[in-house]
Amino acid sequence: MAGVGGLGLLVGSAGVGSVLAESGMWRGRTAPRSNEQIPFHGDVQAGIVTPSQNFVCFAAFDLITTRAEDLPVLLRKWTDAAARMTEGRPVGDENSNPNLPPADTGEAFGLSPSKLTFTFGVGPALFDSRFGLAAKRPSALGELPRFPGDQLRAEWCGGDIGVQVCADDLQVAFHAVRNLARIARGTAVLRWTQEGFQRTAAASGSGDTPRNLLGFKDGTANPDTKDAKLMNQVVWVQPSDEQGWMRGGSYMVVRRIRIRVEVWDRTHLNEQEATFGRHRDSGAPLGAKSEFDPVQLDAKTAAGDPVIPVNAHVRIARGDGSMQILRRSYSYSSGIDRQTGQLDAGLLFISYQRDPFKQFVPMQQRLAKMDALNEYISHVGSAVFACFPGVQPGGYIGEGLF
Amino acid sequence: MAGVGGLGLLVGSAGVGSVLAESGMWRGRTAPRSNEQIPFHGDVQAGIVTPSQNFVCFAAFDLITTRAEDLPVLLRKWTDAAARMTEGRPVGDENSNPNLPPADTGEAFGLSPSKLTFTFGVGPALFDSRFGLAAKRPSALGELPRFPGDQLRAEWCGGDIGVQVCADDLQVAFHAVRNLARIARGTAVLRWTQEGFQRTAAASGSGDTPRNLLGFKDGTANPDTKDAKLMNQVVWVQPSDEQGWMRGGSYMVVRRIRIRVEVWDRTHLNEQEATFGRHRDSGAPLGAKSEFDPVQLDAKTAAGDPVIPVNAHVRIARGDGSMQILRRSYSYSSGIDRQTGQLDAGLLFISYQRDPFKQFVPMQQRLAKMDALNEYISHVGSAVFACFPGVQPGGYIGEGLF
Repeated sequence: MAGVGGLGLLVGSAGVGSVLAESGMWRGRTAPRSNEQIPFHGDVQAGIVTPSQNFVCFAAFDLITTRAEDLPVLLRKWTDAAARMTEGRPVGDENSNPNLPPADTGEAFGLSPSKLTFTFGVGPALFDSRFGLAAKRPSALGELPRFPGDQLRAEWCGGDIGVQVCADDLQVAFHAVRNLARIARGTAVLRWTQEGFQRTAAASGSGDTPRNLLGFKDGTANPDTKDAKLMNQVVWVQPSDEQGWMRGGSYMVVRRIRIRVEVWDRTHLNEQEATFGRHRDSGAPLGAKSEFDPVQLDAKTAAGDPVIPVNAHVRIARGDGSMQILRRSYSYSSGIDRQTGQLDAGLLFISYQRDPFKQFVPMQQRLAKMDALNEYISHVGSAVFACFPGVQPGGYIGEGLF
Repeated sequence: MAGVGGLGLLVGSAGVGSVLAESGMWRGRTAPRSNEQIPFHGDVQAGIVTPSQNFVCFAAFDLITTRAEDLPVLLRKWTDAAARMTEGRPVGDENSNPNLPPADTGEAFGLSPSKLTFTFGVGPALFDSRFGLAAKRPSALGELPRFPGDQLRAEWCGGDIGVQVCADDLQVAFHAVRNLARIARGTAVLRWTQEGFQRTAAASGSGDTPRNLLGFKDGTANPDTKDAKLMNQVVWVQPSDEQGWMRGGSYMVVRRIRIRVEVWDRTHLNEQEATFGRHRDSGAPLGAKSEFDPVQLDAKTAAGDPVIPVNAHVRIARGDGSMQILRRSYSYSSGIDRQTGQLDAGLLFISYQRDPFKQFVPMQQRLAKMDALNEYISHVGSAVFACFPGVQPGGYIGEGLF
């Protein structure tokens, strides 16, 4: 939702030239072994430029151990378990002693890998005084500022470790989070989780851009993940950016954005379209015919008014067109909000970027101040994580930290 | 989960003979027009003997109107909307005035019908003094008793109207509930909702029995929904049972059953299997080899102990084998329980039966008292609804009430 506009190329502080000169380092990932399997190992983590699966289970963990040496042990165990699960194998040895708890919780037995991916990251809190990691904090990792209008609730914020688990099957994704939590027992506990969905591929024969719960297409202007150069510019931390352990990584921003669907549903179609700056049915920018037509921000009506209103979401998200992010959001629905009696539904916004403070934060500052959509949404959860580079066979996720 | 045992045939108060003599009345439903569409109209409502879709959105509504005449108006509007949505058409005319709110919220545009079904029912509360319907209350509809160990929370209980919405796509199911709520504005409000999932058909090539979040197969002993005689015995209200408007209907019981997954996951495999009375991996009854082998309740070990423990779930659910229900449950996962910091996950148990007090209640009374599973589960939500018979084109759901 945020960033629906067709944002221009990123021109980072290093300038396009120097970024390109150093690109090609993260060439992406090897081909999957089957349609249903996405390799766990690679130069970069899966789940970032991977085409969006149908479901997400996002999980934020807090470390409860005080021993620094427990963290790499946990990450190694998680690496092993995640690699197995992405191949559709159970966690641990299923011929183990029946007088012990099963190594795997079992609900994914017999199911395909369902394109399961894990994307691990660490939050700013991990680099406090507890584990002696303060010197390792990446320069681009810090708590996000409070934005105007934020209505954050602690139960959906932060976390020492964040894991985006995606799959084409929700039971497979849930199983993965549950087993990570089980493996972490005594070292880390779940802080918050949120499931999300989009229309399944099966329901949408055409591969159309999915729609969010506002009824509008969401992701029209996302950068092309098949463009490796562009991904180096927008998503992957480059050698010029950061100390060693984050090279080939990325930063994940997660925002739980509640949509006041009941209010939105009482709003006239004209007003909805003016709010977005796009037509609902086609996804075309106002004044254009087709979804992928250029967004004409300078176009005027006969009366001299902007065709795309000054506070339309598409205009504010775009800004000056210099910054882009990779959005990988899902809709969520979590029953009734007890405080209001209305649906607790909205968008689990997830974005990846090379530098959250150069890309996400300026965009969100503009949106929080000016976006016409603010009348219908509120940000109730927030977190940011530095996502590790990929791991090679024999290695473990986050090993560069230690 | 409840009722996993291979329950015998129902022998209702009327006796098998008289039931059979009157059966054949509800012959089921006409064939769907496409793989992705399940007809809305028919002798009986869809979503009961319909093979389980991948997802459920259950919604309970409370009427806020005080005018009795508003209820049939709402049911007629819901009928029209539901029929359209099951065909993959938007609610209302999409060429309507853009200076009005859209007739459809839009997030399912372009998606297939995804086997969408609606199953409407009314709760005991509807027959209080508000709407002059007390005389129409079916004799088999009443509030469920409080069972030992129930930890019900008002936020997941009851409702004047209950709607089970199922589909192979979660966004399609959510869209349906949201539009029902929107249409009800001023007449009824959502009281509680719960989404649920099972493994998607795509993830399970074999059509195996799905597993619940305990890791065990769930539904092995469900009666065969293709057996029309059996469905007349177990599910459909017969002419001998009930006054006119419920004939061809059924009773839906909904229980939100929290599973203490963290505790279960620390339990030895032997203990888990003794708790169920089945092997986890194969689903076979203890002492047997294959999932569909008969449950040998009388078998003894060499030491003379029962092979299937006296308090095993499969044994207690079965009882004397005289009563059967049709289970149509889904797993749920709803983030973290703030009170315990643990996963709020479990089973949205849904069952259909001719008479909840002859079928569900005795079974649940046994389970609540003796089931070994009780150590790991708690019932936190509960509702019962009298589900209308099917509706013919031109009619509306529940019309027999008025």
